[in-house]
Amino acid sequence: MRGGEESEPVREERIASVYQAQGAAGLGPLLAQMHPADLADVVERVEPELKQAMLRALAPATGAEVLAETNTDTTRQLLGLLGPSEVSSLLHHMSPEDAAQLLDEDVPERQQELLGLLAEEKAAAVRLRLAYPPRTAGRLMTRRFVRLEPHLSAEQALFQVRQQARETENVHVLYVVDEEDRLVGVVPLRVLLTAPDGQRVADFMEPEPESVRPEVDQEEVAQRVMQYDLLSVPVTEEAGRLLGIVTVDDVMDVLVQEATEDVLAFGSVPSGAKDEGYFSTPILRTVRRRVGWLLVLFVTGTLTVNVLERFASELDSVVALSFFIPLLIGTGGNTGAQTVSTMVRGIATGEVQLRDAGRVLLREVGGGLLLGGLLALAALAFALMLGNPMPLALVVALSVVAVCTWSNSIGALIPLLAQRLRLDPALVSAPLITTLVDATGLTIYLLIARAILHL
Amino acid sequence: MRGGEESEPVREERIASVYQAQGAAGLGPLLAQMHPADLADVVERVEPELKQAMLRALAPATGAEVLAETNTDTTRQLLGLLGPSEVSSLLHHMSPEDAAQLLDEDVPERQQELLGLLAEEKAAAVRLRLAYPPRTAGRLMTRRFVRLEPHLSAEQALFQVRQQARETENVHVLYVVDEEDRLVGVVPLRVLLTAPDGQRVADFMEPEPESVRPEVDQEEVAQRVMQYDLLSVPVTEEAGRLLGIVTVDDVMDVLVQEATEDVLAFGSVPSGAKDEGYFSTPILRTVRRRVGWLLVLFVTGTLTVNVLERFASELDSVVALSFFIPLLIGTGGNTGAQTVSTMVRGIATGEVQLRDAGRVLLREVGGGLLLGGLLALAALAFALMLGNPMPLALVVALSVVAVCTWSNSIGALIPLLAQRLRLDPALVSAPLITTLVDATGLTIYLLIARAILHL
Repeated sequence: MRGGEESEPVREERIASVYQAQGAAGLGPLLAQMHPADLADVVERVEPELKQAMLRALAPATGAEVLAETNTDTTRQLLGLLGPSEVSSLLHHMSPEDAAQLLDEDVPERQQELLGLLAEEKAAAVRLRLAYPPRTAGRLMTRRFVRLEPHLSAEQALFQVRQQARETENVHVLYVVDEEDRLVGVVPLRVLLTAPDGQRVADFMEPEPESVRPEVDQEEVAQRVMQYDLLSVPVTEEAGRLLGIVTVDDVMDVLVQEATEDVLAFGSVPSGAKDEGYFSTPILRTVRRRVGWLLVLFVTGTLTVNVLERFASELDSVVALSFFIPLLIGTGGNTGAQTVSTMVRGIATGEVQLRDAGRVLLREVGGGLLLGGLLALAALAFALMLGNPMPLALVVALSVVAVCTWSNSIGALIPLLAQRLRLDPALVSAPLITTLVDATGLTIYLLIARAILHL
Repeated sequence: MRGGEESEPVREERIASVYQAQGAAGLGPLLAQMHPADLADVVERVEPELKQAMLRALAPATGAEVLAETNTDTTRQLLGLLGPSEVSSLLHHMSPEDAAQLLDEDVPERQQELLGLLAEEKAAAVRLRLAYPPRTAGRLMTRRFVRLEPHLSAEQALFQVRQQARETENVHVLYVVDEEDRLVGVVPLRVLLTAPDGQRVADFMEPEPESVRPEVDQEEVAQRVMQYDLLSVPVTEEAGRLLGIVTVDDVMDVLVQEATEDVLAFGSVPSGAKDEGYFSTPILRTVRRRVGWLLVLFVTGTLTVNVLERFASELDSVVALSFFIPLLIGTGGNTGAQTVSTMVRGIATGEVQLRDAGRVLLREVGGGLLLGGLLALAALAFALMLGNPMPLALVVALSVVAVCTWSNSIGALIPLLAQRLRLDPALVSAPLITTLVDATGLTIYLLIARAILHL
């Protein structure tokens, strides 16, 4: 693709060199050729002085689009660098939904102050969005779409669409409302284009269209859009009145945001504000964000020390027992992690629910026994190969089976339990499983050792 | 949303009871009200007999849509249950891109046989798709879109769109080609609707549009669609000839597919065929898929046994040393996992590249020292609290700092290295990091112990 031929660093250098040679005045024509999304990427990477100059060189409408796309740190920085009248102009040119997101996620502490800079009508529109909880349909929806009345003829409807197409990009699906603004049907633009001129909208619209309530979670909205290959979803209130629509481009952003959170959650990293970059996050903030989970895991990890202390005499009399500790708990952790990740996806796609717990457990106990049995053979061979006596090798092999079955089972139950407690299964399960399997796996291992080796 | 009011199990029961009461004849009207995507979900869950009856009760065009959406197991089963003329009719009604995906991913061993059932023209169209590698733009693209010629007036162009809208859903962006079928511009339908009747397409089209080559990876296509909020991307060959377009609904499927793979990869589960379900995958297949990675990790994990054997005399003289083994390597693993997940996202979003390795390493060594320092304080206090002598507590605390810094550094480098070697960073890094940190972390710990405790 053309946009891809020139990478960000190249664009960045070109802009920086033009700025050095010609000053802010030279930036205008260069930036005007670029897409706002690409501009946002460059703005995030350059020095504060050039950030400011770039925003000033853009038309306010483009500047508003760029500001809506930059990450939290850059947005905060820009709002600090620009004067009140510049900020007010940028916010004025931003859509109410983008402005609400910016005020809520990027500069929550300046929300009231910045709302005060806006004209009353715009401020009211933004406040309306802020009334919905973050990450819901109400926050994502736009009010810029085309409304039709059911009694119009196809010809009249097309005329209206052509009129309104100047103001809104969202013309692919048209929404039919009655005199009380209740949603009564939808018309894909394609259907309108092929309808005979004289036919009425009511006759070719799709009646009783699907819609979501404004308080519905954005992830659910995304799942519906995907399931039915939609370009937009209408948002209606209880009484059926049409409030707005959520468009597919915002839905894609949601999908990626949720995927990012899942991946970070697997590494026990709580996710930060909207799309914080790797380099743009100050190192102290990264440390602060990570240390919490690490401490929690450390404290629960100290359980392993207590377990081992209880078996001090066994470990003292057969030192070789301790050699297999990391291998055993590692194997348990790996097996559990596999189960957790399968479960997390099964839950995310809606296939696995708490009421399936029995079936899931049966499946995972069976799978654990099989996997454990196969690994136990490898463990037995390995332990004997190192010259360990048969009883010790048997202890290791039996422990592998027990630990795999056990960690497979809790790896299945923890995500279901998290889901039930309305916690994010991905965030809770991955770290918990390792820690739980470590302490319990050790206990299993040393109890088996005590029994077989008669310690 | 309406589609959501009735859950899958409810739909499934209703369909099963109608089938029991009225036989296959009763299914038609019931199924006709349902969306193909919902039908596919139900077909996946019901008994083989009902699966077959449902497919037979559907119009072939709907049946083809359903078959394109069911998971691999169900698709294979259905193709076995239905007769050759039924299969041929379903494939005939399927788009070439869906048919190619089915033949390649679901029943690769029957590819030639099933292609033989198709009329020559259709078979040729499918073969054309199969010539492109899986998961590329060429595989995803459709040829059903609207072409315009640059010399048409807006009025003539709109007339053409209205003609072609009967056959294709993809009318939101129109593609302008020259007499040699080379892509010269795009016209968003919205722009055509607002253009003055007499104006020529060449005057209001967006010239030199972005396009991708057919061999481009689907993930890259998805990133472009997201970055620029597109509804479709044209696919062109070297000489600029327009081959097809990739639409946003397919791109969303790609995003979710890739997210699923990342999550599974973090649990060391190689991903299977297209959207295999949790329950629909036979347990033996699950075990077979999982055991490979577990064995690899087990074998690398045996390194820890060798490390510990080398330090047998140290562990023998101070048994308490072994008590802290799981805690230390657990902490190292957790720290490394955090870094890996941050890096994997940074790489996925394109922010972090191999040439940044120096900056990344500096950052992670710094972060590791800080995190390790904080955790070391906790470790020191904990070890002393348990009544351990100061030198041993110091060994543990110093090891925490060293292990955290070390695992932070390799947690940063492994994903970059994987990326360089064109391996999936998510799949390779998460399991490797734990195993590497285990063996090396133990070595660090016991070397520090040897030095401080003069063993």
